[in-house]
Amino acid sequence: MAADKTLDDLFLDTVKDIYYAERQILKALPKMAKAAQSSALRAGFEQHLAETEVHVERLEQVFELMGKTPRGKTCDAILGILEEGKSIMEDFKETSALDAGLVSAAQAVEHYEIARYGTLKTWAMQLGMTDAAALFDATLREEEATDKKLSQLAEAEANQKAA
Amino acid sequence: MAADKTLDDLFLDTVKDIYYAERQILKALPKMAKAAQSSALRAGFEQHLAETEVHVERLEQVFELMGKTPRGKTCDAILGILEEGKSIMEDFKETSALDAGLVSAAQAVEHYEIARYGTLKTWAMQLGMTDAAALFDATLREEEATDKKLSQLAEAEANQKAA
Repeated sequence: MAADKTLDDLFLDTVKDIYYAERQILKALPKMAKAAQSSALRAGFEQHLAETEVHVERLEQVFELMGKTPRGKTCDAILGILEEGKSIMEDFKETSALDAGLVSAAQAVEHYEIARYGTLKTWAMQLGMTDAAALFDATLREEEATDKKLSQLAEAEANQKAA
Repeated sequence: MAADKTLDDLFLDTVKDIYYAERQILKALPKMAKAAQSSALRAGFEQHLAETEVHVERLEQVFELMGKTPRGKTCDAILGILEEGKSIMEDFKETSALDAGLVSAAQAVEHYEIARYGTLKTWAMQLGMTDAAALFDATLREEEATDKKLSQLAEAEANQKAA
């Protein structure tokens, strides 16, 4: 009979998943910043890149709290989400709708992270890992703030330009 | 010189994307319901399946409002997200952590939909498509309610069982 798996196993797998995802996002954000037509959107992506570096460091702290070496695990979800973002960059290159599409792609990324960090925070609390829960909460708030800021940028500028 | 693309093009592409995604979700939900160990979680997936059928119909109404035949466009994001869900079902099969993993997978799906419907609602308003905006808003509220309900199910039962 196979050994049981518990929340500890699921927690570790999911930390590896989001660690892989964050590092993919680190690679994608400079391309999105470069593609952005509006300077405000470009600055938004650059600011989020700096935040993402901190998110990676926080995950490394979580690995350390577990006594594990930081290691990612291929995350099909983020690969699919970023692939869609790449398609938008190609399909709408040099068009009026590019920035609106970039915002949309970035918000899909943010929502993936919001789902994962929300889950991880809840699991960390269930497992009595208070320090890890606080780290996830800090990142979760930044992802939620980025999502809101992207909505504002879209409504203030990108959507009108595209329409 | 290539023709410009505008928000109308981006809007249609994104409606096709989520139409494809919803139909993939329609196929995945019965498998998730079947896999669920807790009867409350199974019932939750079955209820969401019924809602998802309505979401597909609403998208067909949006296509009709645009005078277009409903047609999907491969959505790499949902394929990746559902692939991860499938891995969880396999990796945690018959373990104490299965339901917690299923909830986590389902919340990643919900957040993808929340991102897309939020964007589509805003674009529809920008384009003066009030009827489409109302349809997206109705679905968006149901996806947000499902996400909250999944959090409650996890905290009330699945996470404790897994821990």
